[in-house]
Amino acid sequence: MSAPIAHGGGITAAAAAFGGRPEDWLDLSTGINPCPVALPDIPARAWHRLPDRHLVDEARFAARDHYGSGAILPLPVPGTQSVIQLLPRLLRRGQVTVTDDRVAATDDKVAVVSPTYGEYARAFASAGFAVDAVDDVAAIGGEYRLAVVVNPNNPDGRVWSTETLIALHERMKAAGGIVVVDEAFGDADPALSLVAHAQNLSNLIIFRSFGKFFGLAGLRLGFAIAREDILAGFEDWLGPWAVSGPALSLAASLLRSDVSAIRHSLHTRSAALQATLTSAGLRIRGGTALFILAADSRASDIYTHLCRHHILVRKFDYAPDWLRFGLTPDPAADRRLGEALQGFER
Amino acid sequence: MSAPIAHGGGITAAAAAFGGRPEDWLDLSTGINPCPVALPDIPARAWHRLPDRHLVDEARFAARDHYGSGAILPLPVPGTQSVIQLLPRLLRRGQVTVTDDRVAATDDKVAVVSPTYGEYARAFASAGFAVDAVDDVAAIGGEYRLAVVVNPNNPDGRVWSTETLIALHERMKAAGGIVVVDEAFGDADPALSLVAHAQNLSNLIIFRSFGKFFGLAGLRLGFAIAREDILAGFEDWLGPWAVSGPALSLAASLLRSDVSAIRHSLHTRSAALQATLTSAGLRIRGGTALFILAADSRASDIYTHLCRHHILVRKFDYAPDWLRFGLTPDPAADRRLGEALQGFER
Repeated sequence: MSAPIAHGGGITAAAAAFGGRPEDWLDLSTGINPCPVALPDIPARAWHRLPDRHLVDEARFAARDHYGSGAILPLPVPGTQSVIQLLPRLLRRGQVTVTDDRVAATDDKVAVVSPTYGEYARAFASAGFAVDAVDDVAAIGGEYRLAVVVNPNNPDGRVWSTETLIALHERMKAAGGIVVVDEAFGDADPALSLVAHAQNLSNLIIFRSFGKFFGLAGLRLGFAIAREDILAGFEDWLGPWAVSGPALSLAASLLRSDVSAIRHSLHTRSAALQATLTSAGLRIRGGTALFILAADSRASDIYTHLCRHHILVRKFDYAPDWLRFGLTPDPAADRRLGEALQGFER
Repeated sequence: MSAPIAHGGGITAAAAAFGGRPEDWLDLSTGINPCPVALPDIPARAWHRLPDRHLVDEARFAARDHYGSGAILPLPVPGTQSVIQLLPRLLRRGQVTVTDDRVAATDDKVAVVSPTYGEYARAFASAGFAVDAVDDVAAIGGEYRLAVVVNPNNPDGRVWSTETLIALHERMKAAGGIVVVDEAFGDADPALSLVAHAQNLSNLIIFRSFGKFFGLAGLRLGFAIAREDILAGFEDWLGPWAVSGPALSLAASLLRSDVSAIRHSLHTRSAALQATLTSAGLRIRGGTALFILAADSRASDIYTHLCRHHILVRKFDYAPDWLRFGLTPDPAADRRLGEALQGFER
């Protein structure tokens, strides 16, 4: 197995190293809405019974209407991570629907627009595929069997237009390849989404995250949007009852609710965070409504300085001058972060 | 992909076919505790944050102490089903720890003590393995790369002694094979469990279900108990944050609670169910504290008759004279079931 990737969310370990109670830390190490919605009631049967077809269907119809996927019923999955792990298996099946489970040949190449969420490269490399980290969508041609684009991208917030991604899909499809577009951070900016086009793009797979936008990352819920046989493959590989009853129940409720206040709150918090970072002299490298990426030659020292103030942010082995800041929950947290940053001696 | 298996829990479909509101049906089609424990408080962070290492560790330590696995820290998984799906991948790795992902050769045979839970045979057959349904543990020798025993067995309640299973492990281990013992229905009868021996049985994998015993099947939680490199493989293939925060939090609480009242309640309910079935003239074929298997030449007609009374039980394509009854929640449900069965005209 390959080495695990260090992700955000390790507040307990940080508190063990730098002191303080975990609950008193300001955790800015993830890209999750810090102002979660109130939890709707979860019916007792969602906890006690196996999630039946009816509950799954209610979540799927709500997701279709919420995301606007038209003829496609999004497939609920226990976190997008669970289907990232399955992507190599999709390729191993040759032409997607062929059932022989052949091993990846050395010429089975995968392109990942990078730097980005590390689990894509890890999943493919671990399954024996050659993974090329490419700079841009434009660099991807038909020589790849699968291409991954995170849009908007994590951690730098780069975005690609619908036209650019549709053109990529056409190039890939012509050679029998597949395009994966991960819209995990796309909910606050729905105009960026390819979902409305998905029913006409046969070799496209879109991932959506539920927990990041609603502030319910502990729930483990995402959706895959693709043509029916691809979703049926994921469903088969995940097996029955892959998603918990409480997650399906909350999806059916929240995806039918008005989310404009959530979008507004994320944009407000993101703007406040950006202002705090800029005031502290950090250079903004990019971002989305769910995080801001700053660049500074002393990023590593700032990271440690913030830890001493019990504020955890995200650093990157591959880009030592980057720091990613998740959203602060309120103006008091903006002030706490701002004061800590002002106290950093250059 | 292979054809899906019909499982219990399809109360919505049954109500659509036979009328009535789903919530008014008596669902005896699953093997889940019908008297669930009160839900302990779930801290907000378990919902909102990604489940961090600390939360996972709390659940693992609680599971170790509850199950008595000694040096082994059980691995929480999102339902046992999720690791059943991964078992073929374990074999495809050759000697378990070898990393090449070779395809199953035709002589890679798997033995499943049958009839039993259908997803084992489906998972292996779907991955290209030859699956032998064997009658008994005694029929399994070293020619198999993996053997599956559900103990106590579903749906017939057969049990195998610790000595028999340890002897099977020795035979399998001598030829490099692995034994999977699924104790999904074993919580009410802990003396049957192999868990206390697991730390000394290197080629053994035990699965435990959390949801069946506690009546929280919607939660999707189970545990795998095996040597460290096997668990690390499962963990790697499932990927980070495979189990939801609420599930980990409830596990940490409930596995530290006194479960003797749950055990007592299951045995009481099981005895009451058995009395109801016997009084109605059904022959008891077997069972566990979580279900009773009855045999009757007119099982199919009884099934339909019960559906007309809005009672759903489990029937079996491969054994048309069998009906499996899940536990009734209370004496009123015993009477309801008893009256419906008495009304069946032979």
